[in-house]
Amino acid sequence: MKNILLIGCGLLGSSLLRRIHRKKIAKKIFVHEKSKKNLFKIKKLKLPGIIVKNLNDAVSKSEIIIFCTPMSEYKKLILKINNHLNPKHIITDIGSSKLESKKVIKKNLKRNISWTSSHPIAGSEVSGPEHGKHNLFENKWCVLIKDKKANLKHLNVLNSFWKMMGSRVVVMSSEKHDKIFSITSHLPHLIAYNLVKSAQDFEKKQRYNLIKYSAGGLRDFSRIAASNEIMWRDIFFNNKNNISKAIDLFIKNLNKFKKDINSMNDKSIIKKLIQTKKVRSKIIKLKQDIDKPDFGRN
Amino acid sequence: MKNILLIGCGLLGSSLLRRIHRKKIAKKIFVHEKSKKNLFKIKKLKLPGIIVKNLNDAVSKSEIIIFCTPMSEYKKLILKINNHLNPKHIITDIGSSKLESKKVIKKNLKRNISWTSSHPIAGSEVSGPEHGKHNLFENKWCVLIKDKKANLKHLNVLNSFWKMMGSRVVVMSSEKHDKIFSITSHLPHLIAYNLVKSAQDFEKKQRYNLIKYSAGGLRDFSRIAASNEIMWRDIFFNNKNNISKAIDLFIKNLNKFKKDINSMNDKSIIKKLIQTKKVRSKIIKLKQDIDKPDFGRN
Repeated sequence: MKNILLIGCGLLGSSLLRRIHRKKIAKKIFVHEKSKKNLFKIKKLKLPGIIVKNLNDAVSKSEIIIFCTPMSEYKKLILKINNHLNPKHIITDIGSSKLESKKVIKKNLKRNISWTSSHPIAGSEVSGPEHGKHNLFENKWCVLIKDKKANLKHLNVLNSFWKMMGSRVVVMSSEKHDKIFSITSHLPHLIAYNLVKSAQDFEKKQRYNLIKYSAGGLRDFSRIAASNEIMWRDIFFNNKNNISKAIDLFIKNLNKFKKDINSMNDKSIIKKLIQTKKVRSKIIKLKQDIDKPDFGRN
Repeated sequence: MKNILLIGCGLLGSSLLRRIHRKKIAKKIFVHEKSKKNLFKIKKLKLPGIIVKNLNDAVSKSEIIIFCTPMSEYKKLILKINNHLNPKHIITDIGSSKLESKKVIKKNLKRNISWTSSHPIAGSEVSGPEHGKHNLFENKWCVLIKDKKANLKHLNVLNSFWKMMGSRVVVMSSEKHDKIFSITSHLPHLIAYNLVKSAQDFEKKQRYNLIKYSAGGLRDFSRIAASNEIMWRDIFFNNKNNISKAIDLFIKNLNKFKKDINSMNDKSIIKKLIQTKKVRSKIIKLKQDIDKPDFGRN
């Protein structure tokens, strides 16, 4: 049994905390959280774990260190704990993009220390420790990053760790990870933010009360567009090259579609609409979403 | 008590049927449906109402006629029943766009016959009578169209009718309707279709299995992109002018956003992400969506 240090205790950190405690995976769980608001909530919720103010003391006492902060915090934290790290430390993070943080880590992390990155595909539009759940990772994918010079021993430990969190683990490179998630996650979020923004622009210009009629589709996008702004700024900045390409591909498709509706190209539109429909059944078959109409909302 | 004729008995038609029957609003309910598949389902489900093969016979016997077919069917149906219509007939439809069908109606409907258009903001990604629900319209908005030369008597009857369906009624012009829903409904659907298409294009090109990782955001869009293709083709074609403008506004925002992430314009991005987040709470406050994180899915 190992000691585990969680740096950051929001939605994901607190979900790990709950699960680690419940499954009795760690000897001790140390929790470092800089936000006073979150600390207050953690205490009020009587979450398990030992809250530590002295980060380096906890680093020295821990075998596994998990970064659960926004990615823009990594550099500062690495520089803070560097001198207390040793090659046996198993370090990971849960960030949603990988190439850019890899650079930050390489540049700032002390030599001979390994960092094995993780990305559990789990989250929500809400944030904060009050929304964490012990089963947040249950049956969700967790991507483990294996690049050149990967520490295979650490990779194995983390593979087991995520399985104990309930995840299904898949291993891939940072490059592949960032390409895939630019399409399946980053572009959808960016689109949701911009659709809601367009509705707001329109509302301002036309002075119509639009939001009242959002049940026709807009409301779905508003959920994703309510996601944490710091986390998503970091993702958009860190994966900007892939995301820019994804935006270009998407705009190309939008313009083609616009042309098709303006010329009333029946054949092309119907073909597209039937084609895209198939993805839904694929997603449900792969158990990536529930099969109830309307997400079972009503 | 009146006789009501429902032309088309898919998701919305069958929901009306169930509700009208349950609330005992009509003396007789006639149901005309041309799809053999739907007719088979209606019989198997033992839905109420009298299935009529002879449409004109049912027209002559009914006081209220509700078109619940795709909008592209209106013309053919109008020409078919024209000679059996009289000025007392209260005719409505549930189509999702109004200006274009108004032209079709004006051009083809016999003189002195009124058509008072409705649009209940209710639906789902599934279609067919097996998915209908008596409470589909409960607490949902229903837009009643009031243009110049509106038949106020019919408008009043339909106002009461939709209230009995459980809807909250709002009256507006075709022009306003089509502008509002180009943003709150038509653009979101068009975007969802094109996002899923972009993911498919990317998958083909990169030979990655993307769909497996759709839980990060894509899966939400796939629900809307699974909507009925005939219904949505009709909407895209019928409201193409407003939708084209909406696409342009949206692409403008996307390109600005892309520029902001490429120049890492922290201030602008954070401002946008915070601004758009507010819409979610507004939507929940207006009871246009449930307030559970992740639509209460997990």
